[in-house]
Amino acid sequence: MKPNLIVQKFGGTSVGNIDRIKNVARKVAKAREEGKDVVVVVSAMAGETDKLLKLAHEITENPNRREIDLLLSSGERISSALLTLALNEIGCPAVSLTGRQLGLLTDNTHTRARIKEISGQRAKKILEQNHVVVVAGFQGINEHGDVTTLGRGGSDTSAVALAVALDAERCEIFTDVDGVYTADPNMVPDARKLDHVSFEEMLEMASLGAKVLQIRSVEFARNFNMPIVVRSSYNEVDGTLVSEEDPTMEQPVVSGVMYDKNQSKITLSKVPDQPGIAAKIFCTLAEAGLSIDMIIQNVSAENHTDISFTLPTTHVAEAMPIMRGIVGEIHACEVSEDCDISKVSIVGAGMRSHPGVAAKMFRALSDENINIMMISTSEIRVSCVIEKKYTELAVRVIHKEFGLENEQVQEESETRSPPERKAASS
Amino acid sequence: MKPNLIVQKFGGTSVGNIDRIKNVARKVAKAREEGKDVVVVVSAMAGETDKLLKLAHEITENPNRREIDLLLSSGERISSALLTLALNEIGCPAVSLTGRQLGLLTDNTHTRARIKEISGQRAKKILEQNHVVVVAGFQGINEHGDVTTLGRGGSDTSAVALAVALDAERCEIFTDVDGVYTADPNMVPDARKLDHVSFEEMLEMASLGAKVLQIRSVEFARNFNMPIVVRSSYNEVDGTLVSEEDPTMEQPVVSGVMYDKNQSKITLSKVPDQPGIAAKIFCTLAEAGLSIDMIIQNVSAENHTDISFTLPTTHVAEAMPIMRGIVGEIHACEVSEDCDISKVSIVGAGMRSHPGVAAKMFRALSDENINIMMISTSEIRVSCVIEKKYTELAVRVIHKEFGLENEQVQEESETRSPPERKAASS
Repeated sequence: MKPNLIVQKFGGTSVGNIDRIKNVARKVAKAREEGKDVVVVVSAMAGETDKLLKLAHEITENPNRREIDLLLSSGERISSALLTLALNEIGCPAVSLTGRQLGLLTDNTHTRARIKEISGQRAKKILEQNHVVVVAGFQGINEHGDVTTLGRGGSDTSAVALAVALDAERCEIFTDVDGVYTADPNMVPDARKLDHVSFEEMLEMASLGAKVLQIRSVEFARNFNMPIVVRSSYNEVDGTLVSEEDPTMEQPVVSGVMYDKNQSKITLSKVPDQPGIAAKIFCTLAEAGLSIDMIIQNVSAENHTDISFTLPTTHVAEAMPIMRGIVGEIHACEVSEDCDISKVSIVGAGMRSHPGVAAKMFRALSDENINIMMISTSEIRVSCVIEKKYTELAVRVIHKEFGLENEQVQEESETRSPPERKAASS
Repeated sequence: MKPNLIVQKFGGTSVGNIDRIKNVARKVAKAREEGKDVVVVVSAMAGETDKLLKLAHEITENPNRREIDLLLSSGERISSALLTLALNEIGCPAVSLTGRQLGLLTDNTHTRARIKEISGQRAKKILEQNHVVVVAGFQGINEHGDVTTLGRGGSDTSAVALAVALDAERCEIFTDVDGVYTADPNMVPDARKLDHVSFEEMLEMASLGAKVLQIRSVEFARNFNMPIVVRSSYNEVDGTLVSEEDPTMEQPVVSGVMYDKNQSKITLSKVPDQPGIAAKIFCTLAEAGLSIDMIIQNVSAENHTDISFTLPTTHVAEAMPIMRGIVGEIHACEVSEDCDISKVSIVGAGMRSHPGVAAKMFRALSDENINIMMISTSEIRVSCVIEKKYTELAVRVIHKEFGLENEQVQEESETRSPPERKAASS
């Protein structure tokens, strides 16, 4: 492909009204003036998808998913046509393409289809004519020629997959924040924008509740090593680069602090300590389509143990009757729920080579008398379940403990690694 | 095709909200329960197309027509998906098809494309499975695979063309009136619904301002002899059958009275009576894309004549400067405009065999001292241009003169032909 090709994706808020669509057009035209070939992927105008879904749910509680895909795909078609008109109006030649015209082929799983192939032939031809290509995100077609959609946030995935298919230099995801932050800026006023995070870190952050990028799009980018830049639609700030780890640079020990208040805990007490019990519990939950996050089994005492697990609060009402049935079957004493919890996590690629990171997090919490109810770790993540009311306090003390604050504070911090320090002062 | 196939088309008002969509679903399900195979063609929900056009015009005054087609086609996709959901919800299996999935191929004239071919293969397969097919009206694709639309009211044309392609028994056009009336019921309270009009009459009526059917759809129906039934979405009244004339029956002398208040008259006075002058005037207007309705040239006096023509009032501002230019060139004395006119017309297949119909209309007008400014006739139509303020009066007296009133009055009328009398009392 052309050497200077970039894919730019604009979310629903960024194209939420005509003024914003005009603003997006100016951004795209600017990139083109700077010598880039540009493919733009757009979401539906903010609120449009919800409006269409609401109409469907006024008709039926259990809508046919093929029809929902046809319905929802209209939103991106509308915004792509409008952005194309806005580009043409400011003298930037552009042509819209639907998922079908792009040649985005998916499997047959309506409402959450997986991309199988992107031909991109027509997009390439349009680029050769020096036109901008405006793609309706979120949608493709299956082998029958029926419209499919990629699930919520699917436009991110469309954009990254398209960047891979066209061999673009990078994929820019424009959103309503300046990039990826060390913590939620609404909770931690001195949270700092990160200049760079690795794919692995971004995956952990996304699965821990950072809403800035859809997990699938990051997986896709990692699998094909496609750099993503997360940046704001409303200013010229550089944003956050999400890419492979650079092995020549030392990694930051901790890149960010995440939290999730939408988790609940279910505990089975006095479970007989026999093989196969845990399997029974979690297979039954899996069969019911309930996804479990953390699982803790305490050490056994008198041939009995306690098993706790966390799951999204919205699934508790469905999980509890199932658990009560199992409690009877396996002669466990009791099942209890606790919706008053939250999960606080740290993520950082440098953890791998820095022992004692988890201990430092635990000490920060204990210094504030915050009790840790559950712990779970991965190679680059530590998560603690705590009482919900301490969430904000916990995030702030951990953020401070690892010196993630803004520039002034960082320079005093001894835990900063060289690339981060450089990034922070740039 | 199946012997019992009907195509039902529902306009924007009929699918204007979720309750109305549910109502349409019940109508379709009822036809299916009565043993019909049903293909439904839907327009966009009322107001949707205007809303989308407004967005486009907030961006540009001169939008690219390919993008407008992509934009507008979304409206029918949404309503077709919603109606399909509503049908499934009441246990009536249904599958939606877009213009592309239907195989509706058009020429490349974006925003007013002409249908070239309808394959209908997929529709046939769905019907074979005993499912209802719900088609997004108004749209097709061109040879490049780009979305095209058929112009305002194009869903009527989609429906009739599809009925022809599938060899349906008839095409039912559901709208917000009970059928075709002898006159506008808002103007003539005792106007009567017609049980039958011929294609020719319907064409004249449509071109004279009856909004109930789009002219192109009637032409299509006539060319392929596809019967149309115009009926209400909101009741079970029988509607009006539009079909070939039945040569075994006597035709009504006059089927209806139409009016058009949106015409204006331009007059060129003292035009030299030389060959080629009229050609020059009307070629110039045609080149400017202005369509002219009636043309009258008075008899010559002293080698000069007056030429008057009517055109839509919205075109007067464009036509007048052109006319002033011509007046200078051809040394005509004067050009004047008159926007204070209207056109009142009668249409009836029986006129062909009944002399004196026009005279009867003129007398009715003169009895009320309404001056006739221009007259134009076809085989089955007489049109008079009169002062606009007399429009309502003229329509009512002509309606009464030809005995077009409701049943009680008709029975006293001597001008009713047998089939009409039968129809009126049924």
